[in-house]
Amino acid sequence: MRLRLDISYDGTHFRGWARQPGLRTVQQTLEDALARVLGGEVRLVVAGRTDAGVHATGQVAHLDLDDAQASRLARGRAREGEDDGGIAALARRVNGALGAYADVTVRRVRRAPDGFDARFSPVWRRYEYRIADDSYDPLERHRTTFVRGRLDADAMDAAAGSLIGLHDFAAYCKPREEATTIRTLLAFSWRRDDEGVLLAHVKADAFCHSMVRALVGACVAVGEGRLSAEDVVRIRDARERVPEVKVLAARGLTLTEVGYPADELLSLRAAQTRARREL
Amino acid sequence: MRLRLDISYDGTHFRGWARQPGLRTVQQTLEDALARVLGGEVRLVVAGRTDAGVHATGQVAHLDLDDAQASRLARGRAREGEDDGGIAALARRVNGALGAYADVTVRRVRRAPDGFDARFSPVWRRYEYRIADDSYDPLERHRTTFVRGRLDADAMDAAAGSLIGLHDFAAYCKPREEATTIRTLLAFSWRRDDEGVLLAHVKADAFCHSMVRALVGACVAVGEGRLSAEDVVRIRDARERVPEVKVLAARGLTLTEVGYPADELLSLRAAQTRARREL
Repeated sequence: MRLRLDISYDGTHFRGWARQPGLRTVQQTLEDALARVLGGEVRLVVAGRTDAGVHATGQVAHLDLDDAQASRLARGRAREGEDDGGIAALARRVNGALGAYADVTVRRVRRAPDGFDARFSPVWRRYEYRIADDSYDPLERHRTTFVRGRLDADAMDAAAGSLIGLHDFAAYCKPREEATTIRTLLAFSWRRDDEGVLLAHVKADAFCHSMVRALVGACVAVGEGRLSAEDVVRIRDARERVPEVKVLAARGLTLTEVGYPADELLSLRAAQTRARREL
Repeated sequence: MRLRLDISYDGTHFRGWARQPGLRTVQQTLEDALARVLGGEVRLVVAGRTDAGVHATGQVAHLDLDDAQASRLARGRAREGEDDGGIAALARRVNGALGAYADVTVRRVRRAPDGFDARFSPVWRRYEYRIADDSYDPLERHRTTFVRGRLDADAMDAAAGSLIGLHDFAAYCKPREEATTIRTLLAFSWRRDDEGVLLAHVKADAFCHSMVRALVGACVAVGEGRLSAEDVVRIRDARERVPEVKVLAARGLTLTEVGYPADELLSLRAAQTRARREL
């Protein structure tokens, strides 16, 4: 039985999502809490393997239960008088194991639809990046990057819009073996919120490594007057990383949403994905 | 020369505003940073002496400069090409002394109007209290109190409204010698924000010790169905603390604004306040 977990975390005190020996990561923290509730081995497969310090309000993972775990879950259900095999109650039980005011929480658990794969099914991912330029709010410092000097939000928004589309984003990616840098940037915009904080909204089919933070860094260079909208397009099309584009700090970045196909499309799409991977 | 400082802080890692030997407090942290910039002795007088863990986005303090400090400030001004005696630049210099991503910041410094006293001039203080009941956001955990079980926001809002007015709030105060418990509660309401978080908005001429957190605790008892709106009024009018009213955690509480009279009324009011205190 496969479960879908919707997850939020404050990334400040995690060394990213993925398990690493001896380091505190989101995956290790959640898998350990799940194992305390379910028994046995627990392995999460995640939509977005976020880097150290990156936050999430809309992370998604899946988990396959073996028979012993499923029946242990159902016994919990029998005690609590629910009739879904204990699935809905699992979020509450895992959060109990994580402790009060934990920096990671399971917002919801449900049975995954047929063909659902948290990592391979997504059709898009959405991130937000927060920058404070001429204001500073200590209560938001853990999820905001502070930049000195007033940024030109309109110029940043125009530059962001000029990057949208299907392109090779190698200039805005940290290289990784076997990972394509050809991505469809579906949305990229900047606005100021009511408190004057600059918010980037970035959406793509998938992102290569450090891509959001490099795209945001390019726009900050535009907002400071160091680059033009034409420059950021020219840099993209030259497909080479340049020192003018800084990869901004993880603290400002939050994975806010992962888009999956409708349930009835998932099993068909999963079959196609498997076929494509076998080519 | 008297300066007005507008201050924000994340109270999580402070033992409150007031200096205490050997403890990290907001007053000590700010006075030390100001002394590094200005030299000499620095003593801040504050509008609201917040408790350990309480936050502020609208704290106000004043500071009297001696001649040596004023001329040191003006020398900074001369270097930076400003013509206000270096006052506006002081915020930037103090924040530099506090360090990047500090949990306290000076948002603004200006010359205090004649008769201004951060502690005695205010005509009202405004606080906000954040409660999450059926949701939990790790990114907001440092400034939100989590309560199990869904609260009835409408009943809480009605109960809050019934407490407004000039009353003896002894039932909702921790006793302190020589401190009056007769206060004018000017506003008290509850609403859910876009994320479903319950927000209390509380405004009074002044608050006795723990008053906001006890008022909020009484409303939570109403939201849970343990007390009625009539009960919280009856408890108030009995002027005795009762165990049904919990003082909620500091983490959910933020001082958001302090109201001062218009400049032209301040010097007159200061004279009246001095006369009243001498009675």
